[in-house]
Amino acid sequence: MTKLYSALWVTKRLYSGITGKVQAQKYVLTKYFQGEPKKTDFKIVEEELPELKDGEILTEAEYLSVDPYMRAYMIGYKLPTDMIGGQVAKIIASRNEKYPVGRYVTGSFGWRTHTIVNTKKRDPNLPLIILPDMPYPNSLALGVLGMPGNTAYFGLKEICKPKEGETVVITGAAGAVGSHVGQIAKILGCRVIGFAGSQEKCDYLEKELGFDRAFNYKTADIRAALKQGAPDRVDCYFDNVGGEISSTIMSYMNKYGRVAVCGSISSYNDPALPKATIVQPALVFKELKVEGFLVGRWYDRWDEGIEMNLKWLQEGKLKYREKVYHGFENMVDALVGMLRGENTGKAVVKVK
Amino acid sequence: MTKLYSALWVTKRLYSGITGKVQAQKYVLTKYFQGEPKKTDFKIVEEELPELKDGEILTEAEYLSVDPYMRAYMIGYKLPTDMIGGQVAKIIASRNEKYPVGRYVTGSFGWRTHTIVNTKKRDPNLPLIILPDMPYPNSLALGVLGMPGNTAYFGLKEICKPKEGETVVITGAAGAVGSHVGQIAKILGCRVIGFAGSQEKCDYLEKELGFDRAFNYKTADIRAALKQGAPDRVDCYFDNVGGEISSTIMSYMNKYGRVAVCGSISSYNDPALPKATIVQPALVFKELKVEGFLVGRWYDRWDEGIEMNLKWLQEGKLKYREKVYHGFENMVDALVGMLRGENTGKAVVKVK
Repeated sequence: MTKLYSALWVTKRLYSGITGKVQAQKYVLTKYFQGEPKKTDFKIVEEELPELKDGEILTEAEYLSVDPYMRAYMIGYKLPTDMIGGQVAKIIASRNEKYPVGRYVTGSFGWRTHTIVNTKKRDPNLPLIILPDMPYPNSLALGVLGMPGNTAYFGLKEICKPKEGETVVITGAAGAVGSHVGQIAKILGCRVIGFAGSQEKCDYLEKELGFDRAFNYKTADIRAALKQGAPDRVDCYFDNVGGEISSTIMSYMNKYGRVAVCGSISSYNDPALPKATIVQPALVFKELKVEGFLVGRWYDRWDEGIEMNLKWLQEGKLKYREKVYHGFENMVDALVGMLRGENTGKAVVKVK
Repeated sequence: MTKLYSALWVTKRLYSGITGKVQAQKYVLTKYFQGEPKKTDFKIVEEELPELKDGEILTEAEYLSVDPYMRAYMIGYKLPTDMIGGQVAKIIASRNEKYPVGRYVTGSFGWRTHTIVNTKKRDPNLPLIILPDMPYPNSLALGVLGMPGNTAYFGLKEICKPKEGETVVITGAAGAVGSHVGQIAKILGCRVIGFAGSQEKCDYLEKELGFDRAFNYKTADIRAALKQGAPDRVDCYFDNVGGEISSTIMSYMNKYGRVAVCGSISSYNDPALPKATIVQPALVFKELKVEGFLVGRWYDRWDEGIEMNLKWLQEGKLKYREKVYHGFENMVDALVGMLRGENTGKAVVKVK
């Protein structure tokens, strides 16, 4: 099909309301995760999509996101349920002229190949955004220029509130959010210490991203690492993992320290929540402030985060890596791989 | 000695600088606490006090305070060290006319019978305050109208920030701070649930102090108690105890709930910090804010707290109980008794 022919064909669909018979494939969760997610927890279902109504667009997924929160959230849904998640998708039919065919969007459409999106309805989880023209892969809209990037930007800035010269510690430091947080903290003039799950990741953090120190939490004595890496103790802690390492870090903080709790990936695969040394004594005597957050609270400032991260990216101050898995059929492997820490930076799945 | 004679004698001391040979007795901590504090962790030392210098006063203790923080704090001191603590004391000699002989003051003078206080030096722990004339026992300056009262007032108001109609949960609810917090929360129009260590204490909280519900944490299923007592779940949690009960309460909070961490008495007697179910998942998914605090941060607003509590006391909105131990020689028994929860309301020791 030539480009012109395609455009005419789409125009016809647009105005006629004929969508053709588009078959979407989607993941339906049929069993609650126990331990690591398994393929058998899902079934892949084919769904024939109806005609577009006014204000709707039809999209085709290019990249699907796998994120730690997916492991934790599904407990809140009644089964069976469509799997949740963000994606980058191409608009292939449209009944809203502000969303023209051929452009790419991001939204929380779930694990599915094709989606009908009501552009007039505000998605409570993630804004529907048309990707700007940019000299970067579209997948960045799921990472540095998307939800994880905004999680890093707002979580660090608004919850940790780091001041120049302060020491910032990050766990899960080589992940999509952690590696981004550390770089922003460096931009803000902080000393940055990361904990990650392999020597290779630590080397990446120190040598490529400019972390002052990075330690392998699997082999390091955490307290000794903190003494060595944070001689002035810790002012801000960006917590991606929870568990015992977080208790140790909080016990090593300075008066009026701030902790942003972004996740607790260390506990997600446990059948019951684990126990760790209580944090209350450190909280009281150091007068610490610990706040959990979901990035959606800054929904109305979404563009601010994207624009700042894009600016830093363009200035070369922000670097990124991606771990790209391939194939819609490999979503579960990608999710499990990410939860095991296979990725450095953002994990995404290229659908085709 | 007649009153006049006494005044003349004191005046002479005041201007001559002669203090006579005042022998103070004081507790010196010689061993770090292990488990419950023991008499053998201290020695009682006699000390001859020097002459008063300009700006100094000599005080004689009337009431000494025993508070949970005493069990936790001493680890931070090099031994041997004088035992810390607040007291109500009578001025028996003065070289500052703003602090006249015969008036009573509160200050953090430690566990000692007589003290020379430099009135010109700001005590970083507790303001030196002259007790106003009031129709209440002086001991209230160590409780409702003192540090615990201000801890309740500022901790609830500034950290929990309860709104009318919200549900407030308090652990250690029958103690000096907890029983006070609950009453302020009722004044502010909240639903108030307390956890305390005996049925008798629970009856007191419900029937005399107006708590909506109180549960014996030693016998109750905490989660079931919360379901029953807090049908709209929990918006504010005032945490005096730490440990597993705190993890359970945090898991039962509403979105954007606030936790004021005042203490963690459940852990104070343990040789190592105990473990409890991690709180990070609740923090993230409910976006909770948890803040530890020491009341000294509101040092500059100290009078505001005292005045509000006095007003509520006078209006009959604030009730109190005290557990009064007797005798300087029984300080350790009083401390241990309070840590065991013998007291309802504030525990104090009448020196003579």
